[in-house]
Amino acid sequence: MVQPTQDAIDIAVIPGDGIGREVVAEGLKVLGAATGSTGPKVSTTDYDLGATRWLATGETLPDSVLEELRGHDAILLGAIGDPAVPSGVLERGILLPLRFALEHYVNLRPARLYPGVTSPLDVARVAPGGIDFVVVREGTEGPYVGNGGALRVGTPNEVATEVSVNTRFGIERVVRDAFARAQARPRKHLTLVHKHNVLTHAGHLWRRTVEEVGAEFPDVETAYQHVDAATIFLVTDPGRFDVVVTDNLFGDIITDIAAAIAGGIGLAASGNINPQRTTPSMFEPVHGSAPDIAGRGIADPTATILSVGMLLDHLGLADAARRVEAAVAADLADRGGASRSTSEVGDAIAARVG
Amino acid sequence: MVQPTQDAIDIAVIPGDGIGREVVAEGLKVLGAATGSTGPKVSTTDYDLGATRWLATGETLPDSVLEELRGHDAILLGAIGDPAVPSGVLERGILLPLRFALEHYVNLRPARLYPGVTSPLDVARVAPGGIDFVVVREGTEGPYVGNGGALRVGTPNEVATEVSVNTRFGIERVVRDAFARAQARPRKHLTLVHKHNVLTHAGHLWRRTVEEVGAEFPDVETAYQHVDAATIFLVTDPGRFDVVVTDNLFGDIITDIAAAIAGGIGLAASGNINPQRTTPSMFEPVHGSAPDIAGRGIADPTATILSVGMLLDHLGLADAARRVEAAVAADLADRGGASRSTSEVGDAIAARVG
Ligand SMILES: CC(C)[C@H](C(=O)O)[C@@H](O)C(=O)O
Ligand SMILES: CC(C)[C@H](C(=O)O)[C@@H](O)C(=O)O
Repeated sequence: MVQPTQDAIDIAVIPGDGIGREVVAEGLKVLGAATGSTGPKVSTTDYDLGATRWLATGETLPDSVLEELRGHDAILLGAIGDPAVPSGVLERGILLPLRFALEHYVNLRPARLYPGVTSPLDVARVAPGGIDFVVVREGTEGPYVGNGGALRVGTPNEVATEVSVNTRFGIERVVRDAFARAQARPRKHLTLVHKHNVLTHAGHLWRRTVEEVGAEFPDVETAYQHVDAATIFLVTDPGRFDVVVTDNLFGDIITDIAAAIAGGIGLAASGNINPQRTTPSMFEPVHGSAPDIAGRGIADPTATILSVGMLLDHLGLADAARRVEAAVAADLADRGGASRSTSEVGDAIAARVG
Repeated sequence: MVQPTQDAIDIAVIPGDGIGREVVAEGLKVLGAATGSTGPKVSTTDYDLGATRWLATGETLPDSVLEELRGHDAILLGAIGDPAVPSGVLERGILLPLRFALEHYVNLRPARLYPGVTSPLDVARVAPGGIDFVVVREGTEGPYVGNGGALRVGTPNEVATEVSVNTRFGIERVVRDAFARAQARPRKHLTLVHKHNVLTHAGHLWRRTVEEVGAEFPDVETAYQHVDAATIFLVTDPGRFDVVVTDNLFGDIITDIAAAIAGGIGLAASGNINPQRTTPSMFEPVHGSAPDIAGRGIADPTATILSVGMLLDHLGLADAARRVEAAVAADLADRGGASRSTSEVGDAIAARVG
C-alpha cells in the first residue's frame, strides 16, 4: 500500500456528486492513456460517498469504507455536495474526515497561467512574467478542526465559538515539506502567509517554526505577508510568489484567488498529500459538484485531469505525470473559444498524452 | 458628545506613525476647505498614540487617553505601526482596543472604481458595469477577540489556539446596519460572506441572523457566498456586489482585495462606526504607516481624504461629505500618470471642494 511498484497501481475512485462523476471519467481516461500498454497496470475501485448515499442512508464516511480506502495507493475524488444536504454535513462528515484521518497535511495547489488561458487580470501589466506558483496549505488543523460550539441557541444571548488549534508538530511537518518544494524549484523562494499581528498565538508559532525549519534550508529565501496583504499582491503582482505556505483557512481562501487569476477553478487541481506515504493521498479538482450544470456533459474536466497528473507524480510516475501536464498545456494553447463537451476535452487530452 | 450640532465639530486626531502624519495633514486641509467659513467651526486635538510613544514609554492606549477620546465627536486616525515594534503590540494594544472599547461594530469599507483610476483587473471584460459596493465588516468580535493562548511554548509539543467568539447580539446589530445600508441603495442587495460549511457553529449563527433580520427588510434581496468563492467573484465579477456583510477576519481579507481591484489601498477609506453614536466613530485609511516611504512627502493622501468625507457624512454633514467625494473623483479623473507630492494632492482636492 502506497509503496506502489512501477508494475501496478491501485486507485480508489470517489466520483461523488453532480459533475464529479463526469469529470472523474475523463480523469481516468487520461490516466489510462498516460500509463498505456507499457506503463503500470491500473486498477480502480469505485466508492459511493457523497450526497446520494447520505440522502438514501444517512451515512457519510462509514469506518469500514475508510479502512478499505487505506488499502489503495491513491484516491481520486470528483466532487461532493448537493443543495439538498444541509451545509456542513458532507464537508464535516466526509471531505474533512478523509483529509484528517489520512493525514493529508500537505494540501498542494499549483497556480499556473498556461498559454492560451485568459485571466481576469490585466496580465500584460500586472504579471508580465507570468503566473507560476504553488500553495502548500496545511490540511489537518487550524480553524478547520471543528472544535467549538454554541450556547443558548436561538436566544438573544446565543454565543458561538470556533477554536483554531495549531500544533508545532502539525506546522513543522507542513513547513518542512514547503521548504523542500521551494528548494527544488529554480527560484527557491518561500512566503509564509498568516495574520500574526492579530492572531498572535497561532501566528507566532507559525513564524518561529518557519524561522527554525528555515535554518535547514539555507538556500531558500523566505518572506512573510499578512493574509490581507497577500491577497492584494495576488491581484497586483502575482509573479512575486513561488511557494506559499499557510494555514488551512487562509489556504482555502488564497487558493481560490490563485485559481481565479490563473484562469478559473475549471483548471485548478489539488492534492491532499501525506508526504510520508503511510496512507494514500487524495487528488481532486478544487471546484465543487456544480449541480447547476451536472448531467449535461459540459463540465470542464481539466482540473481533474491535472489532478491525475499530480497523482501520477506522487506515485513516482514522473514521466507519465509530465506527459499529462504537457498534453493539458497543449490542449489549452489550442482551445480558443471553442465549446466542447466534457468527453471531447478528455478525448483531446488523452490523444495528446500518448 | 457625538451629538454634534451643525455649528461646531470637535475631532480627535491620531496622526500615528510613518506616513500617518503626512496624510492626516492633508485630510485636515480638506476638512477645513469642506467646512469653510460658512460651515461648522472645526476644532481638533492631537493625541500621540503609536510606535513612537510605545518605543519611548512602553505605553499603548492609556485609560486616560481613551477617556479623553470619548469626549470628541469623531476620531481621525492616520496609521499606526513601525518595524521596530514587535508584531501585535500596537494592533492588540491600540487599534483593536479602540475599535472594541468604542463599540465600532460597523467597519465600513466602500469599494468604488473611480473614472481615471487603473484597476489590476481587465475591467472591460470582468466589470463592464463598473465596481461600486460597500463592505460592512463586523468590528468587535469573531477571530479578532484575542482569546486563545499557547501551551509548552518552544517545545515540540507546543499548541496554540485562537478562539473566535460570535454573539447573536454582536452579529444582529451589524447585520441590521448592513440591511439598512442595502435598503438605502438603488440595488438593495446584500451578500453574506462566511464559511458556514466548515465553521458551522459561527456560520449557522450568522446565517440564521441574516435570515431573521432580513424579514424586517422585505425589499432587500439577499445572497450568500462562502468566503473562498467570494474572493473569486471579487476578481471575476465584482459588479455583482452591492452591500456585503461579513465577520471581522473575512472582512479584513476581502476588503483588501476590494481595495486592490478598485485601484489600490492608496485610495481605500474606512470608517470604524458606532451607528448608535454613544461613542465617537473613527475614520482611517485602510493602508498602514508605510515606513519605506515615510517622511518623503510622496504618500497618496486620497484614502485619508475619502475617510474625512465618511467622517463628515457620519456627523450629518452630508453636503460637505458629498463635496469632498466629488472633489476626489474630479481629481482622480484628471490625475493621469502625474506624480505629485502628498501636499500637492491635498491642495488640488481642497481647491476643488469649495
Ligand atoms: C468543501 C470545503 C470543505 C473545502 C475546504 O474548505 O477545504 C473546499 O472549499 C476546498 O477548498 O477544498
Ligand atoms: C492593522 C490590523 C490590526 C488591521 C486589521 O486587521 O483590522 C488592518 O489590517 C485593517 O484592515 O484595518
